[in-house]
Amino acid sequence: MALNRETTQSIRVARRGGKIALEEAVGSPLFAAHQCYPPRPVIKGLQGLPFSPEFFADIESRLDDVNLRLESMDRCGIQYAILSLTSPGIEGVSDTATAIRFAKETNDAIHEKYVATHPSRFGFFACVAMHDPEEAAKELERAVTKLGAKGVLINGFTNLDDRDEKLRYLDAPECEPFWAMLHRLQVSLYLHPRLPPTHQQVLYGQYPNLVSASYGFGVECAGHALRIMCSGILDKYPVNIILGHCAEALPFLIHRADQRMLIGTPGSNGKHTKTLMHYFQNHFYATLAGIRRHSTLKNTIEELGESRVMFSVDYPYESNEDAADWFDSLEINENSRAVISHQNAIRLFGLDSEQNK
Amino acid sequence: MALNRETTQSIRVARRGGKIALEEAVGSPLFAAHQCYPPRPVIKGLQGLPFSPEFFADIESRLDDVNLRLESMDRCGIQYAILSLTSPGIEGVSDTATAIRFAKETNDAIHEKYVATHPSRFGFFACVAMHDPEEAAKELERAVTKLGAKGVLINGFTNLDDRDEKLRYLDAPECEPFWAMLHRLQVSLYLHPRLPPTHQQVLYGQYPNLVSASYGFGVECAGHALRIMCSGILDKYPVNIILGHCAEALPFLIHRADQRMLIGTPGSNGKHTKTLMHYFQNHFYATLAGIRRHSTLKNTIEELGESRVMFSVDYPYESNEDAADWFDSLEINENSRAVISHQNAIRLFGLDSEQNK
Amino acid sequence: MALNRETTQSIRVARRGGKIALEEAVGSPLFAAHQCYPPRPVIKGLQGLPFSPEFFADIESRLDDVNLRLESMDRCGIQYAILSLTSPGIEGVSDTATAIRFAKETNDAIHEKYVATHPSRFGFFACVAMHDPEEAAKELERAVTKLGAKGVLINGFTNLDDRDEKLRYLDAPECEPFWAMLHRLQVSLYLHPRLPPTHQQVLYGQYPNLVSASYGFGVECAGHALRIMCSGILDKYPVNIILGHCAEALPFLIHRADQRMLIGTPGSNGKHTKTLMHYFQNHFYATLAGIRRHSTLKNTIEELGESRVMFSVDYPYESNEDAADWFDSLEINENSRAVISHQNAIRLFGLDSEQNK
Amino acid sequence: MALNRETTQSIRVARRGGKIALEEAVGSPLFAAHQCYPPRPVIKGLQGLPFSPEFFADIESRLDDVNLRLESMDRCGIQYAILSLTSPGIEGVSDTATAIRFAKETNDAIHEKYVATHPSRFGFFACVAMHDPEEAAKELERAVTKLGAKGVLINGFTNLDDRDEKLRYLDAPECEPFWAMLHRLQVSLYLHPRLPPTHQQVLYGQYPNLVSASYGFGVECAGHALRIMCSGILDKYPVNIILGHCAEALPFLIHRADQRMLIGTPGSNGKHTKTLMHYFQNHFYATLAGIRRHSTLKNTIEELGESRVMFSVDYPYESNEDAADWFDSLEINENSRAVISHQNAIRLFGLDSEQNK
Repeated sequence: MALNRETTQSIRVARRGGKIALEEAVGSPLFAAHQCYPPRPVIKGLQGLPFSPEFFADIESRLDDVNLRLESMDRCGIQYAILSLTSPGIEGVSDTATAIRFAKETNDAIHEKYVATHPSRFGFFACVAMHDPEEAAKELERAVTKLGAKGVLINGFTNLDDRDEKLRYLDAPECEPFWAMLHRLQVSLYLHPRLPPTHQQVLYGQYPNLVSASYGFGVECAGHALRIMCSGILDKYPVNIILGHCAEALPFLIHRADQRMLIGTPGSNGKHTKTLMHYFQNHFYATLAGIRRHSTLKNTIEELGESRVMFSVDYPYESNEDAADWFDSLEINENSRAVISHQNAIRLFGLDSEQNK
Repeated sequence: MALNRETTQSIRVARRGGKIALEEAVGSPLFAAHQCYPPRPVIKGLQGLPFSPEFFADIESRLDDVNLRLESMDRCGIQYAILSLTSPGIEGVSDTATAIRFAKETNDAIHEKYVATHPSRFGFFACVAMHDPEEAAKELERAVTKLGAKGVLINGFTNLDDRDEKLRYLDAPECEPFWAMLHRLQVSLYLHPRLPPTHQQVLYGQYPNLVSASYGFGVECAGHALRIMCSGILDKYPVNIILGHCAEALPFLIHRADQRMLIGTPGSNGKHTKTLMHYFQNHFYATLAGIRRHSTLKNTIEELGESRVMFSVDYPYESNEDAADWFDSLEINENSRAVISHQNAIRLFGLDSEQNK
Repeated sequence: MALNRETTQSIRVARRGGKIALEEAVGSPLFAAHQCYPPRPVIKGLQGLPFSPEFFADIESRLDDVNLRLESMDRCGIQYAILSLTSPGIEGVSDTATAIRFAKETNDAIHEKYVATHPSRFGFFACVAMHDPEEAAKELERAVTKLGAKGVLINGFTNLDDRDEKLRYLDAPECEPFWAMLHRLQVSLYLHPRLPPTHQQVLYGQYPNLVSASYGFGVECAGHALRIMCSGILDKYPVNIILGHCAEALPFLIHRADQRMLIGTPGSNGKHTKTLMHYFQNHFYATLAGIRRHSTLKNTIEELGESRVMFSVDYPYESNEDAADWFDSLEINENSRAVISHQNAIRLFGLDSEQNK
Repeated sequence: MALNRETTQSIRVARRGGKIALEEAVGSPLFAAHQCYPPRPVIKGLQGLPFSPEFFADIESRLDDVNLRLESMDRCGIQYAILSLTSPGIEGVSDTATAIRFAKETNDAIHEKYVATHPSRFGFFACVAMHDPEEAAKELERAVTKLGAKGVLINGFTNLDDRDEKLRYLDAPECEPFWAMLHRLQVSLYLHPRLPPTHQQVLYGQYPNLVSASYGFGVECAGHALRIMCSGILDKYPVNIILGHCAEALPFLIHRADQRMLIGTPGSNGKHTKTLMHYFQNHFYATLAGIRRHSTLKNTIEELGESRVMFSVDYPYESNEDAADWFDSLEINENSRAVISHQNAIRLFGLDSEQNK
């Protein structure tokens, strides 16, 4: 064979199949997803975020279109997706009774539209109303045992009033029934980012896009995860929590957080009994949703181990095509690629052969 | 030689000399450093932060003790330290005239106490009053040209009133004279973290220590750096900015921030003309202050290159001894160790042979 | 808590238990291990290698001393070791009938002395006489099914005459019965280095120590592994092969070998049907025997994946104490450490709970 | 901007200019390059190596074609190449007088054809006849001072007879005048691989391609480099040595070689006074010639530091196009890319602005 002496200035991607994606958004039939607090179930659209109209139009056309989604998954070697209600979802519906009703009806709708119709392609994470943790636990149980939900996804804090002033994070003592049910059912929680509350947004100054996915979403979500660790709830209910975006920079900084915890006064660190790193390495999984950078992936693997990192996209907010081209061309060994692509997800979610072939 | 068959369960550290440290705090003779806004120059101590009394007592005893500092530096192979006024410093003095006066007198005092007395061991970063950027520029010029300051250190936002409601970040258009002077003098800015403003602290819930160095400091500082990038000021004045703590997780997440910038509406991203990664790789340096984790160091080197990462400690808030033992025992090649330990700092600050022997 | 302000210039090691070691040498009761070709069963000692008398004396005192071994394992958190006859072992006994007899009797002796007596601490890899591959297969079957051998260890080439001129490598077609039996029994082959044959030693010039473990052993063993890949035997019998010393630099160079294979004339590459990398990633495991360098470990993980790298020492030729101190203090996450320390070995060798508690 | 929703299953390469390549082969007007020992200056072609006819034909058409070379360099963003006589070159001409004459005339010819004609695109490494080290030193001096050679390239051992039985490696005491001149001129030695001598080839069994670049070349060259380190010559003449192929796996294994050196008897290790790692990190540079694998590059950077790793191709034996596409699309920061691409070479070879613009 003679050597290649030409260039198209491109690197060919060998497409790999069988990928499983875990942070994949759908809408609710009951309300437009975005900016829904105060509850505005009739408002159509995604106004308010500093995203371009072209971006929004594309998202809207894809959020609830099963065929576009399946075609894209097929192009990208994504065999199976675990779907969830897009952020802020139920958490942004500040009226408790409405939230409870919407969660239940949304779970039924997602199950019917996606999972029952395409069982070999779709699973789902339930949504629940953390406004009433007892009800959230009940709906979680129903969704898992009756509808086959693979776990639950929570979009950060829950609005308890219309003005963004009463927020419930998952470290609140009131949430314990929810954690107890997670543990009893042995299913995982996906903790998803959400636009930081109004009073946090000042940090980002004149640059509204910094508030959103560019930086603020990640900060909000990582802070939430740290609160959960600090609360000690994982000592009582040792469940698994999944974070997107390679765990929102926690792999990079959690070691330092632990060091600084040592200088706190008694009580300033919460009730947890172990290091933050311990909780991170024993109770957290990271997905690649939104990440296309090898150094970031490596740092994540180095702090969590290969067994706790999983492929994902965040469709339709991210491009399946870009994500798959990047992942399939990553210069890593094929054993690790398979572990991250699907083997970890198969093990964690107990996916049977039907769902992943 | 027979093999070793014993163990003391420890790894011996081969101490290396010649290290240069860059985020090393001293007090001001004019006021107690911490929690000084509203200006409370007579208040003694470091109350308010959720740090343990033992930690505080140790810090207080060391912040202004030259001999303890030098003894520790000697033990740790730190030849030279560039000192700076501890956070929040001048930035927390909300009265403009007072701030201007304190900055000038503090620079003189630090120069006299440390630099003039021990020129082969200490340099300093000036403090300036960003309350009045013209005055800040003037004092910067004086400090650099008359006192030999190696640059300037800013502790995040500047309080412009007593109630934490008017904050000035360095992306404010008013700050341009300061940037222009930095550029004219060709010196670097060290952007240091500061306790997030009150309205940000809600993020950290019931865990006050999370607000402080454990997580909140880094988020505040990285957000500030991103604002500077977004402002476009680096297009006009291409200066160098130094960040501690391995650049506050920016190496991990800046690639994603760039991706998400692409979906913003016109104007939502600021006036910058290049990618955030471009500014990061061309205008930022990272120090190891506060970091003792190889994976974090590696991620930082992978995104900035070996030529933009520098040793540091954050003494007395961090332990020289722990930092030096970790750094000197790091399993890296000796060429890279020397580059990070001191060669980059010698080049960046034009340190002559006297100062580093 | 106040910060630490002292240094003993050492990093404390937190000893981890439960480690499993896989390249651990013992002697044969029938002959002195070293320099045994031509067969010199009565020769005592380890003459001929350029090792210091102190080193040799220590090795001799430890090779067959169960108590010294167990004490060292206990000190080092090594729960379980799979033992094997030290190099060159049976492979260096050039008379076929003698080799067959010695293999059988040595397996019985190792089993009785170690495994039967300390079943929770020791397993073993059988030795076999590749001089007669049919006999080798038979003895392998006996050792696995009757004595519970965990697989087989081969010390490189086999001497078929007394003058180092007829050498049998495992890619020889004659070896097929051995591979067939490996496959039938579903056990692994540990391919161990051996002093390169005389005519190779010229490469190392005036420096006899370069021939030995310093460089020559690794080259010889990696070359042998490449021959096995090229032979195509793994297409027919897809078994697992374990290499020590982080797979003898194959992780670093096998990608290049594959590239260069493409320019060969038909037939110059052997009968294999897939890339060398394919065989490497699907049929090889690497152990840490003899390696104490993080960058080498990382390269190995990057090419094989975390699931194919396993702790080991090479006792008594290496120090359990040095290996354990290094491994236990490695700055890696605890999930990966457990996988490498013992979880992979438990899975690969089907170790039950009794053997690893 | 809407997200990309299409895929061509390829990753676009952003071509970077300014690259410098250092292991780039040309022929001699006096003899065909390959298989030239015993000296067969009239033999045309590259017979004997197990390379395919298509590969050979392509090499022959390119080895001496300036225009094809420049066109390819232009396509690939390679601004400047330091050329050298292809292996085995002068080293394979066993007659001393002939070798001396050929070296001189070849240097003149390469200088005239490439360097004098295209000074902004080409430099060269001299060839010399190590058969007579005094003459080699003289010719090196002439080539550097009169012809502007950037250093010297040696293709491994030198044949001193026709039958491959008397070989001279650079650790031979006779070579001292050559080392002294290298040191006096302050130029670098590129140590290039060569087909292992006949008696080594048995290692590779039935697979002749394993002997060649697939594995044997690298082993031979790394062994040669270790001999040089062991000889102690670098203690006396601390010069720089460049190795291709990411330093032939030395980054991966040299730490272990050092460990094993400690068990040698006095005299078995050579006369060197420092660790092998010390020589490696202080006197060696690695090039990317022949390497297209990120993990291998990383391991090399981790052991040598970013300042001692340099781009190269090994044209025409490797493809400029493949090398440039790989290197330009490597997911590394742009600072490190520039350092490796050309900045290190500019510094090491004192390339002035004319040669690299």
